[in-house]
Amino acid sequence: MKASELAAILGGDIEGVDVDLFACGGLEEARPGDLSFCKDAKHAALVETTRASAVLLPRGWKVPPSRLRAGAPFAVIRVDDPDRACMTAAEKFAPPEPERAPGVHPSAVVDPSVKIGRGVHVGPFTVIEKNAVIGDGAVVDAQVFVGEGCRVGAGTRIYPQVTLREGTVVGRDCIIHCGVRLGGDGYGFNNGRRPDGSVFIEKIPQLGIVEIGDGVEIGSNTTIDRARIGRTYIGPMTKIDNLVQIGHNVKVKGYSGLIAQSGVAGSTEIGYGCLIWAQAGISGHIKIADGVQVGPQAGVPQSLDGSMKYVIGAPAMSMRDLAAITLAPKMIAKLKAEIKEIKARMAEGARKR
Amino acid sequence: MKASELAAILGGDIEGVDVDLFACGGLEEARPGDLSFCKDAKHAALVETTRASAVLLPRGWKVPPSRLRAGAPFAVIRVDDPDRACMTAAEKFAPPEPERAPGVHPSAVVDPSVKIGRGVHVGPFTVIEKNAVIGDGAVVDAQVFVGEGCRVGAGTRIYPQVTLREGTVVGRDCIIHCGVRLGGDGYGFNNGRRPDGSVFIEKIPQLGIVEIGDGVEIGSNTTIDRARIGRTYIGPMTKIDNLVQIGHNVKVKGYSGLIAQSGVAGSTEIGYGCLIWAQAGISGHIKIADGVQVGPQAGVPQSLDGSMKYVIGAPAMSMRDLAAITLAPKMIAKLKAEIKEIKARMAEGARKR
Amino acid sequence: MKASELAAILGGDIEGVDVDLFACGGLEEARPGDLSFCKDAKHAALVETTRASAVLLPRGWKVPPSRLRAGAPFAVIRVDDPDRACMTAAEKFAPPEPERAPGVHPSAVVDPSVKIGRGVHVGPFTVIEKNAVIGDGAVVDAQVFVGEGCRVGAGTRIYPQVTLREGTVVGRDCIIHCGVRLGGDGYGFNNGRRPDGSVFIEKIPQLGIVEIGDGVEIGSNTTIDRARIGRTYIGPMTKIDNLVQIGHNVKVKGYSGLIAQSGVAGSTEIGYGCLIWAQAGISGHIKIADGVQVGPQAGVPQSLDGSMKYVIGAPAMSMRDLAAITLAPKMIAKLKAEIKEIKARMAEGARKR
Repeated sequence: MKASELAAILGGDIEGVDVDLFACGGLEEARPGDLSFCKDAKHAALVETTRASAVLLPRGWKVPPSRLRAGAPFAVIRVDDPDRACMTAAEKFAPPEPERAPGVHPSAVVDPSVKIGRGVHVGPFTVIEKNAVIGDGAVVDAQVFVGEGCRVGAGTRIYPQVTLREGTVVGRDCIIHCGVRLGGDGYGFNNGRRPDGSVFIEKIPQLGIVEIGDGVEIGSNTTIDRARIGRTYIGPMTKIDNLVQIGHNVKVKGYSGLIAQSGVAGSTEIGYGCLIWAQAGISGHIKIADGVQVGPQAGVPQSLDGSMKYVIGAPAMSMRDLAAITLAPKMIAKLKAEIKEIKARMAEGARKR
Repeated sequence: MKASELAAILGGDIEGVDVDLFACGGLEEARPGDLSFCKDAKHAALVETTRASAVLLPRGWKVPPSRLRAGAPFAVIRVDDPDRACMTAAEKFAPPEPERAPGVHPSAVVDPSVKIGRGVHVGPFTVIEKNAVIGDGAVVDAQVFVGEGCRVGAGTRIYPQVTLREGTVVGRDCIIHCGVRLGGDGYGFNNGRRPDGSVFIEKIPQLGIVEIGDGVEIGSNTTIDRARIGRTYIGPMTKIDNLVQIGHNVKVKGYSGLIAQSGVAGSTEIGYGCLIWAQAGISGHIKIADGVQVGPQAGVPQSLDGSMKYVIGAPAMSMRDLAAITLAPKMIAKLKAEIKEIKARMAEGARKR
Repeated sequence: MKASELAAILGGDIEGVDVDLFACGGLEEARPGDLSFCKDAKHAALVETTRASAVLLPRGWKVPPSRLRAGAPFAVIRVDDPDRACMTAAEKFAPPEPERAPGVHPSAVVDPSVKIGRGVHVGPFTVIEKNAVIGDGAVVDAQVFVGEGCRVGAGTRIYPQVTLREGTVVGRDCIIHCGVRLGGDGYGFNNGRRPDGSVFIEKIPQLGIVEIGDGVEIGSNTTIDRARIGRTYIGPMTKIDNLVQIGHNVKVKGYSGLIAQSGVAGSTEIGYGCLIWAQAGISGHIKIADGVQVGPQAGVPQSLDGSMKYVIGAPAMSMRDLAAITLAPKMIAKLKAEIKEIKARMAEGARKR
């Protein structure tokens, strides 16, 4: 897009050369062809050195960049609010949302018993098995597997290469990203020794399902296991990031966030409005109270009743307790010095007597 | 299913309304349409408040729930063993195991050189390349990729969207869940500087394979890399959870468990009967003795000879040693108080003299 | 392959029985049919006990294994450099690299607008959407999804079941392993309360792309999110292992390594030549200076300016500082003993006076 076209869209005034622009980028990261922005005079030096082909600046900004004066292939677009203008520009540069017209791709293998709502898109090489139900306006992208008896709510978007094992229920207006695995068997085995002393390991049948509430988003390659009995439940508006693991019979009440690579072991309950930060791990069969935040890499072995609003470390504790452990060597050095001093004074006292 | 039908199956006696039942759920989680159960009088209050439409209770239980007395749409089924009856009921409510009839789906792309055993099922859009061998009764579900020369043992179940890179060997009666990646290249690079000072990073060819023993189960989206030379080996009856990473040339002897999101770096050996808990990490080129348990989030930098049966923390240590670190601030505060007291007494002594 | 054939290839001399060989393996791991090697007299005992059918030994090695003397089905191949000979043998035993002849598999769904270079291979059930560009000699394996407007550089290899969401750019000579997810939406939500007190959680549109530089390798099931605006950027020659998570707007300058299950949160910059070890976590909006190594399971909450070349622990610190914390209980015990001694001496002093 020409800088002048963009200036017109943004209601801004262009100075300099009418360059071609292809993308947005921060002042430091930008390359030729990029539009960048600056709203704060303290970053003026970066406006001088950026490789961007154009920069959005506030109207009030006095000194023009020297490149502009030099006649380089560079433009300045002056706008009221560079931040907001950049967001608008980003929408113009964004890859267009792929069209997903209603209809079932002829290559898809859809069982005749499947109920498909109005306006549903089913992509190439997707498999939908017996008795599944796909709600109105849902998009089931390419190469997806929807097992027997699954139900997908209206308006839900399933990206390519997702698998929904049999019986999985997904609510309305959900977004399921590539590679998500819903309804895999939970990890459950009985083991012990037979009368003859030999070891056995037996699979415990995983007879339940996964149920996802309305408005849930699930990030790429996340895995959520089916319940042993009943349901693994992800409540409404929960937002799950990439590579998260949710064990069997976990219950996430709703309106919570689980950040990348975190994990929740079997039968644990996460309250409303919780935030589980990246790489945190939560043990099985415990309860996390509403609104609690579990810090990055924290390990939670026991229930949290909400008396601590934020925990960190492993085993999880308050920020203050973790800081005390980190400071232990400094405290020890101090005590050591005091003891040395006491001993010296005692030795001196003994000499004097 | 009608509560009365279920009662007949369970050999139980029904009281109250003959409600329709669709699923199982704990007393607290249950919803209308659910069957719940209680065997312990101390949870009697939950029987009063549960939203379940029916509850399994022991025959001896005297007081019926008040909802029963009130004539609500609610049933009690009295049985000898509510626990066991609930398991039986759960099997009735479970999504039916999808039928996988013998035969190769017409859409599958199977090389003519592939040897397919008796009773094998191959699902839609599955690719099986040259010289692969699929054992009797194996199920290779939809959208699976089986590379050149792979061997899949009899009775093994491969769920949708698994990839087996060339040469991978899977034993008999294994279960491979959705999104598992077997035989990816191990992480191996040579790097350094050329005589002219420029940096190079060269891929080390990964020439070996992955070999999975009999009776192994591998969870969703787990990755196991091919050996640099020889085999990455997962011994018989090993049970691996979701999102686990196994590096090249790792050897897991057998009868071990690796819980979700744990990782084992290259060339490490895990003994028989080990249990690696969630999110634990084990360094490369070390040995974990038979029967050792590595706790959740533990980091093991060195071999474990079995003198500690359970390790935790990073670097991994005994429970006792980790507790001592966690308690350090408390111990320090105590010593500080003692030193303060000593100083006070010394000052007093000096005054007196 | 016959041991004699292999000896001829390796320029070695065979002694003993001309056994059949199928694979390579270490002396301890090897099985019948395996070739092993030993170059160091201190491992001579293992040469006696190995189950391998043949062993590569240095020419100078005097004592032949007793199995050789006993006439067992066993061979010794004497070579100048057993290490190197083993590498050569491993190449002979390696599963053959699957042939990927130029051409588009008839089952692939490729939009007519897609530009496909010379010598490109596109596998079965692969989907390539509108306006994508595939460079000369690239291999796009089976069951891959390439979204609208994606660009894949010349010579790049994409293994089965990878997804590239719309707009993703991959450089030349990259290797993308099975199950990699490029261009998923970053994790970004606005939340708060409406005037009526109800909670809202709104998705922030993720308008940018993922751009992968030349010579990058990405391990199985790794996920890299699209930028909120602009690009998530993985610079040239970066080597990423399995199950790694890279957040939106991350910039990895290049020539760096990210080991398995590590994670980098949004908008963070990783310098040139960094090494992020397994399961490490790096917070968002920080910078890691060129050449810094982040140890396994480390958690980095703040920028690292390069004054520490290696950090470990959580929060990340120097090796020395982590060791001091680990040693705290020992130090405390020592101080406790000293205080006890001081008190005893004071009590004695008081008695004497």
